[in-house]
Amino acid sequence: MHEPDHDRLARTGMPEAVLCSSKTAAQLEVIVSDLHDAGTPALFTRLSPEQLDRMPRGLASYLDYDDASQTATVHGNRPRRAGQVCVVAAGTSDQRVAVEAARTLEFSGLAADVIVDVGVAGLWRLEACLDAIRAADIVIAVAGLDAALVSVLGGLVAAPIVAVPTSVGYGVATGGSTALNSALASCAQGVVVVNIDNGFGAACAAVRMLGLLGGDR
Amino acid sequence: MHEPDHDRLARTGMPEAVLCSSKTAAQLEVIVSDLHDAGTPALFTRLSPEQLDRMPRGLASYLDYDDASQTATVHGNRPRRAGQVCVVAAGTSDQRVAVEAARTLEFSGLAADVIVDVGVAGLWRLEACLDAIRAADIVIAVAGLDAALVSVLGGLVAAPIVAVPTSVGYGVATGGSTALNSALASCAQGVVVVNIDNGFGAACAAVRMLGLLGGDR
Amino acid sequence: MHEPDHDRLARTGMPEAVLCSSKTAAQLEVIVSDLHDAGTPALFTRLSPEQLDRMPRGLASYLDYDDASQTATVHGNRPRRAGQVCVVAAGTSDQRVAVEAARTLEFSGLAADVIVDVGVAGLWRLEACLDAIRAADIVIAVAGLDAALVSVLGGLVAAPIVAVPTSVGYGVATGGSTALNSALASCAQGVVVVNIDNGFGAACAAVRMLGLLGGDR
Amino acid sequence: MHEPDHDRLARTGMPEAVLCSSKTAAQLEVIVSDLHDAGTPALFTRLSPEQLDRMPRGLASYLDYDDASQTATVHGNRPRRAGQVCVVAAGTSDQRVAVEAARTLEFSGLAADVIVDVGVAGLWRLEACLDAIRAADIVIAVAGLDAALVSVLGGLVAAPIVAVPTSVGYGVATGGSTALNSALASCAQGVVVVNIDNGFGAACAAVRMLGLLGGDR
Amino acid sequence: MHEPDHDRLARTGMPEAVLCSSKTAAQLEVIVSDLHDAGTPALFTRLSPEQLDRMPRGLASYLDYDDASQTATVHGNRPRRAGQVCVVAAGTSDQRVAVEAARTLEFSGLAADVIVDVGVAGLWRLEACLDAIRAADIVIAVAGLDAALVSVLGGLVAAPIVAVPTSVGYGVATGGSTALNSALASCAQGVVVVNIDNGFGAACAAVRMLGLLGGDR
Amino acid sequence: MHEPDHDRLARTGMPEAVLCSSKTAAQLEVIVSDLHDAGTPALFTRLSPEQLDRMPRGLASYLDYDDASQTATVHGNRPRRAGQVCVVAAGTSDQRVAVEAARTLEFSGLAADVIVDVGVAGLWRLEACLDAIRAADIVIAVAGLDAALVSVLGGLVAAPIVAVPTSVGYGVATGGSTALNSALASCAQGVVVVNIDNGFGAACAAVRMLGLLGGDR
Amino acid sequence: MHEPDHDRLARTGMPEAVLCSSKTAAQLEVIVSDLHDAGTPALFTRLSPEQLDRMPRGLASYLDYDDASQTATVHGNRPRRAGQVCVVAAGTSDQRVAVEAARTLEFSGLAADVIVDVGVAGLWRLEACLDAIRAADIVIAVAGLDAALVSVLGGLVAAPIVAVPTSVGYGVATGGSTALNSALASCAQGVVVVNIDNGFGAACAAVRMLGLLGGDR
Amino acid sequence: MHEPDHDRLARTGMPEAVLCSSKTAAQLEVIVSDLHDAGTPALFTRLSPEQLDRMPRGLASYLDYDDASQTATVHGNRPRRAGQVCVVAAGTSDQRVAVEAARTLEFSGLAADVIVDVGVAGLWRLEACLDAIRAADIVIAVAGLDAALVSVLGGLVAAPIVAVPTSVGYGVATGGSTALNSALASCAQGVVVVNIDNGFGAACAAVRMLGLLGGDR
Repeated sequence: MHEPDHDRLARTGMPEAVLCSSKTAAQLEVIVSDLHDAGTPALFTRLSPEQLDRMPRGLASYLDYDDASQTATVHGNRPRRAGQVCVVAAGTSDQRVAVEAARTLEFSGLAADVIVDVGVAGLWRLEACLDAIRAADIVIAVAGLDAALVSVLGGLVAAPIVAVPTSVGYGVATGGSTALNSALASCAQGVVVVNIDNGFGAACAAVRMLGLLGGDR
Repeated sequence: MHEPDHDRLARTGMPEAVLCSSKTAAQLEVIVSDLHDAGTPALFTRLSPEQLDRMPRGLASYLDYDDASQTATVHGNRPRRAGQVCVVAAGTSDQRVAVEAARTLEFSGLAADVIVDVGVAGLWRLEACLDAIRAADIVIAVAGLDAALVSVLGGLVAAPIVAVPTSVGYGVATGGSTALNSALASCAQGVVVVNIDNGFGAACAAVRMLGLLGGDR
Repeated sequence: MHEPDHDRLARTGMPEAVLCSSKTAAQLEVIVSDLHDAGTPALFTRLSPEQLDRMPRGLASYLDYDDASQTATVHGNRPRRAGQVCVVAAGTSDQRVAVEAARTLEFSGLAADVIVDVGVAGLWRLEACLDAIRAADIVIAVAGLDAALVSVLGGLVAAPIVAVPTSVGYGVATGGSTALNSALASCAQGVVVVNIDNGFGAACAAVRMLGLLGGDR
Repeated sequence: MHEPDHDRLARTGMPEAVLCSSKTAAQLEVIVSDLHDAGTPALFTRLSPEQLDRMPRGLASYLDYDDASQTATVHGNRPRRAGQVCVVAAGTSDQRVAVEAARTLEFSGLAADVIVDVGVAGLWRLEACLDAIRAADIVIAVAGLDAALVSVLGGLVAAPIVAVPTSVGYGVATGGSTALNSALASCAQGVVVVNIDNGFGAACAAVRMLGLLGGDR
Repeated sequence: MHEPDHDRLARTGMPEAVLCSSKTAAQLEVIVSDLHDAGTPALFTRLSPEQLDRMPRGLASYLDYDDASQTATVHGNRPRRAGQVCVVAAGTSDQRVAVEAARTLEFSGLAADVIVDVGVAGLWRLEACLDAIRAADIVIAVAGLDAALVSVLGGLVAAPIVAVPTSVGYGVATGGSTALNSALASCAQGVVVVNIDNGFGAACAAVRMLGLLGGDR
Repeated sequence: MHEPDHDRLARTGMPEAVLCSSKTAAQLEVIVSDLHDAGTPALFTRLSPEQLDRMPRGLASYLDYDDASQTATVHGNRPRRAGQVCVVAAGTSDQRVAVEAARTLEFSGLAADVIVDVGVAGLWRLEACLDAIRAADIVIAVAGLDAALVSVLGGLVAAPIVAVPTSVGYGVATGGSTALNSALASCAQGVVVVNIDNGFGAACAAVRMLGLLGGDR
Repeated sequence: MHEPDHDRLARTGMPEAVLCSSKTAAQLEVIVSDLHDAGTPALFTRLSPEQLDRMPRGLASYLDYDDASQTATVHGNRPRRAGQVCVVAAGTSDQRVAVEAARTLEFSGLAADVIVDVGVAGLWRLEACLDAIRAADIVIAVAGLDAALVSVLGGLVAAPIVAVPTSVGYGVATGGSTALNSALASCAQGVVVVNIDNGFGAACAAVRMLGLLGGDR
Repeated sequence: MHEPDHDRLARTGMPEAVLCSSKTAAQLEVIVSDLHDAGTPALFTRLSPEQLDRMPRGLASYLDYDDASQTATVHGNRPRRAGQVCVVAAGTSDQRVAVEAARTLEFSGLAADVIVDVGVAGLWRLEACLDAIRAADIVIAVAGLDAALVSVLGGLVAAPIVAVPTSVGYGVATGGSTALNSALASCAQGVVVVNIDNGFGAACAAVRMLGLLGGDR
């Protein structure tokens, strides 16, 4: 059985998290119940509305569920920590992933802004937001299709940039591998990449990086 | 045997062209000799210096060879036609392909400017050339790696844009399929694409399009 | 949120367009409402009948929906512009994509003919339509499977040819990558290609090209 | 060690054949020597000039080597059998594979014509040869790039058609998988396919089929 | 619209056939109605029970539908022709494809036996059927997973062998590309291959080959 | 630097082994010298003749080099252990990999027979060796192309079978992924697979398995 | 029709097994009925609850169905044999595959422990179970995502290790090919691999290996 | 021509860098000369010894070349900045990439330790270095094959981890895509990834992150 790692957050700064997409209803029930009873703060990602509906109402009531990102938390009120992250998404369709990143950051006690619909085919939109983006400690760039946003941001911003390719699109963009490869091959220096649609992972990377703030390591 | 299509240019506006990379020395000798003797204007692409060196000196002297693009012509002085094409290349390494496009255009009687090293990781370089690019009837965008240049140009320019992905790069960029898919999935509307490293094909597409100039069709 | 680019058409000739396939019902409602209220002409592509059915009836009534292409428009009566496009599709199953191209052209004020079922396994059908095809300023070739239609048209027509590979077929044809690669590797010169099933993009490319008509650029 | 199947031809009609490309010099020497001494007719395919040069002169003299196809035979004078095969190749660069097929057929006692440079971008060339092609019992179609020749022939010819995709080309055509998939997805009915560059295999298939001639099975 | 080729069978021996899987209900209705009214014999492949159910009862009654192969015919009583084909399938799950081949042959006036469940992991089953297989003019080998049946048959049978890889299996076998590549790379000589799950195509190839019977070409 | 694991063999039964193919000359010199001086038995795989030639003669003399498998050993006289392995290879070209497995086994103190050229296109050759194969405790099956040998052996032998796909072949067989996927999708039960060309790994697996002999675990 | 191999278990030690995922309801009914009536012990894998529900109640009652692994048995009480297998799974989501392996082992008369949720991102969990794992004769390692568990176990355990990559995960992990390639490329020596999600196959491999126990071969 | 961005370092903290692998000798000469004359600090990556040898001696003398990493610098003495990076490489063959990262860091004024040969198949080696690794502000993990090192480090270290997959290995590991996908699918949270063999990019990412040190942003 899944045995939660009840003090992971204290030890590594990484949240206890449960990827729900390939778990059965029975498995989820045990996990939610265990985490709630133990008082362990936890984040559930890719928890579909259908999975939530199949859950006994008592269990579901333990969860703070967010539709837009399909995430939930238990015992989620974390103390606020230093650091500001800006999540920038190329299109409306990338919003689920962008908000997953923001929710993960908030669960970890970090402030997160989300800016959507600034794809590079309309550079003026991006330029209008540039001051806000440059004010952040870390930028998370969420983009599907050709993920050109990643390279453009990489040339405009000096902060760490974590690219999250998304599976948005059709034809050669199906599944997100074009966006992924594009981000990995970015002509901008020092951009780093996580798995397709992995807003959660990008936020966790930001948590690791923000440990550098204040130079206390 | 290869039987040249001696009046193709007159009929379709497309140049007689010979792709040399997979031909044997013996095959090339016959083709060069035939085209020269028939007085047929022809363009040779991907003719490596090694292939040229192996050719009998007499035959080689028929050819006007260009190192930078590895192209050659016979009977290449074509009358000048209306239309201006701008070939924009993201990096120095994309130059061979960019110049192949320019040579093909010149062989077809068309004027071509080549602008190199305007990758989007340094947007200010691109912006400095934007007036020159916008002055062209057609833009050919040559880029490897993530080919982000294609989407950015697509949002800045109203003219037809033909993207030529290149095989420049390593890792996921090897062979050019990342640049190709990125150009096909471009978030900019109405960008069209040719095969990887196919500067010749992009120029041929421009020849087709410039037939629209003056509305004489 | 999606912030429509209300004057894109005036500036670049490209229509304001919304790709609906990966948007939620909530996102679509806001976009339709905004575009309608602002009086912005817009095209919706890949809007499934299911998505339309879930829309509040008031909103749906703003849309001029076409079943065959799964497209819709708001404020869609555009002034007529010069230029004639012929959309040629290899098989009956390619019709959705072909009509998407035609609808996009009409929305942009351009005339479009659609010719279906002229695959090259029956060359005589294609030959019967050749005069009509040659009369067009631009040819859009829509084909799945091996997309052999693209190369055959490329040898018969001097006008610009935009190939739209489709995802029609099974086995190695599944998803359309065989048709795509076949079009990119076409033995005909100067054929250009857009993403799989991207009838919209091919029409946008035609809009860019038809700006050359009359030589007014 | 390789133990030749000395009476395969008699039993199955298939020639004893040795694929040389991945064999060491030492292995080839033993095989050539064994087959020669046993008087077994055998065909060697993909025997590079370099491999031939490294062979002891005595052994090499047993071989009837053909440069154009990189094939060799020992004891190769087979009695003539009924049946006529036409090998049709799209381009000059496909010639090595086409001649490999022809050499295999001749080694098996069958007559073979080779027609080269009839790619579909110039349909009139193909039409000029159509009577010759239709006169054959079996057609072997050799083509790289998009292999559109296969579908066009499939619609014009009622005889069995064996497609041999080739690795000719660059970009998406590299290695031949585009030509292969294109042939497999052909819109023409009843076309069959062999491995990339496998002229030998196509000829063997023809040998199997020609066993049907005369209805003596 | 789909315009049936009403005399294809007479001209090329190939049946008029309609691939139904990517056609809409409206398109299918027109096609069935046209073919029935014109008295044209036709074969429908990949016609799902759901598509049949959605058809108006009057139209459906024109069709002779077979569940096991998901094929249907109109005007299907073809005169009997010379030739015997044996369809050999490796496993129970390959049956749909095997029966599709058999139905296509019967529609074309050819006799076909179907032998199922003779995968090579149990060689004795295959050996028990070997005499029946060797009695056929042509063998169609239907197999998924690793398609090892193809190579084993290729070594045991002198007749033409058409391999039909199937999409049966999971993991690396998903979709059938492993079976396809395995058949193409078969160590047996002269085996030919058609697209994944393409029982129809294999039967058409057999029709082409059986034209050689009697030597009347 | 590479720090050899001098007592690995004693602890896990696995030999100390050095994969040479991606190491520089300088790196190899240090490793050979260290292992020789420490008296540690070690196996070197994929050590090309060119790498051996570049090594200082003194160092090279420490190595017992085998051309056929491109392996070498230092301090290689291991005590004999219980267990008999049969390495079966489909073709002559698979020999390098088969002998790499045999050399690894011998280095580990195990007896190994090598049987070559028993591909399934000639079943009678395989049947002639079947008693020898069945006498072994473990069978290592080495095959390229479609690796059909693996499934056939899997149905004939009850012992553990380790499949080693090889990169032998061209076209779809290039690089060995067809053989690999074929082995993984084998219709025979309980066959296990190692990486392409990994004769060494198959032998190591046999070493692990033979620890079960005698039931002393 | 599927003809069960009623005495396979006696002859090869491999269980009679039926892969249900691609079989129709009609095919499954015949197979279940035949095996039950003949008294043949058999295992059904990938039998979905939906398939079970569609089965006539009388037939279904012959089956001992297990939800967690989607397997069923008929006549499943096999005599107990020597040997202990430990099935180790990286995550909760890998449980279906792990239990499929365990059920197959039990059906074959072998004892199997299942340990879940010991992924290497939390090494201490794995270390806590290490004694139990080392006590087994054979270890089956079940893991998706990057399958890093395989390499770590390979360095810690001397027993045979059979890796079962799973299709758990999203993005680059979708379908399991990342886990598969990772297991094949494992830096640990002598690890062997079966197809993605193939818990059944791993158990069959263990059955083959455990035949070595006691040295009675 | 390549126009160096002479003040990039001051503006973004990113070094001026030249990827040499796809540049011609003529292009490199101009670039080296320009950078030297302008006094611009610059880093050259993937500069092969052959490229260096072809350079005029005068130019080459401007370069501080490092064999192990195939990098060079001009005007490379950068002032020391705060921050400590640990580069951890799984195997000896990964050293070129690891040193490329270290050289890039040193060029940027950052201290870097390199630890090699700590692959997870021998966990005790990794554990012996764990204190040194945990002392760093940032960890760069360099690994080929299955890149299992990435996940194991991810579970043991709280600092930011940048994974650099390498192209080391053969078979499924060829080219590095297995290592890349494995790192992207890592079961450890918050690990970020750069392109295959991109030691330079990982170092640039570290430069971005270390801007957070001291909290002065």
